[in-house]
Amino acid sequence: MLRLIFVTNNRHKIIEAENILKKYNIKIEKPLVGMKKLEIQSSSLEEIIKYAADYLFKMNFCNFFIEDAGLFIDHLNGFPGPYSSYVYKTIGVDGILKLMDGISNRSAYFLSVVGLCFKDVIKIFVGEVKGKISLEARGEKGFGFDPIFIPEGYEETFAQMDLEKKNSMSHRAKALRKMAEYLKKFY
Amino acid sequence: MLRLIFVTNNRHKIIEAENILKKYNIKIEKPLVGMKKLEIQSSSLEEIIKYAADYLFKMNFCNFFIEDAGLFIDHLNGFPGPYSSYVYKTIGVDGILKLMDGISNRSAYFLSVVGLCFKDVIKIFVGEVKGKISLEARGEKGFGFDPIFIPEGYEETFAQMDLEKKNSMSHRAKALRKMAEYLKKFY
Repeated sequence: MLRLIFVTNNRHKIIEAENILKKYNIKIEKPLVGMKKLEIQSSSLEEIIKYAADYLFKMNFCNFFIEDAGLFIDHLNGFPGPYSSYVYKTIGVDGILKLMDGISNRSAYFLSVVGLCFKDVIKIFVGEVKGKISLEARGEKGFGFDPIFIPEGYEETFAQMDLEKKNSMSHRAKALRKMAEYLKKFY
Repeated sequence: MLRLIFVTNNRHKIIEAENILKKYNIKIEKPLVGMKKLEIQSSSLEEIIKYAADYLFKMNFCNFFIEDAGLFIDHLNGFPGPYSSYVYKTIGVDGILKLMDGISNRSAYFLSVVGLCFKDVIKIFVGEVKGKISLEARGEKGFGFDPIFIPEGYEETFAQMDLEKKNSMSHRAKALRKMAEYLKKFY
């Protein structure tokens, strides 16, 4: 059994990560006092996560992982990208659907970047899932832009899938499984 | 004559600031090597500027000012706000107009926050201008979302005004003049 701190306030992400990592015998723990993820502004999720991991490490924290994800819509030049969470809170799912109204190129992808600090080494893992923006919001599961994202090869949106199904090919699941595979040699 | 470094890559902002500050006998200088503005993600421009100023000060830089601005649209819950530059580069003026299509409440405001480091003290100055989002883009002057912002009491957008007129009541001009007034006692 390996214990790792997941530095996040997003309970949906914790549930998804627990579901994946328990299969690897990795247990998620709560952040310690003072552990706060600092996010810089950048169009690169990888740069954001690297900075945030380094920042925590410089404060003498390790044995943690952090994750940042974004929805990148081709027709909108990658918008909302790294600012997906802010965009979700302001213009929301309806705003994205309005921006995509009448647009035939609906290609998009979800990207997840995980930053792990373990044994004083920082490692970055990336997961991606291609898909498209649906014509209307569907489903109540998941969170964020899940109701308007249909992964390639499926008919349902992420928000219409149960946890196991979403975790079978989501961006976040892919990045977290890469992390878990890397950690295998240590325990 | 006072000399201050304006840490920015935005030549439009430099031109606006020069126009204002020369009246106060303040001369703008170019950033030194290694002076880079680090922007964190936050819904508060003030927090972003404070962090960026502290960051440069910790690297032993002072005698500078930095500025961050955003367009806050009421109907869109403040979007694009602190991420105006990213939103401009991705969905642009057309994206904002599409989001506002059919919306009667077009109230918005531009906010500018200036962070000054002078004599080893960091000071923050805020400027705001209320207005509304135009129905279509108008004008070629200014930059960013200027073509769709009509300040209160005017008919033209910022992009239809010459520099002197925009600087007579813009958010950035207000914040910079507050900084200049504060600095008066030192020279």
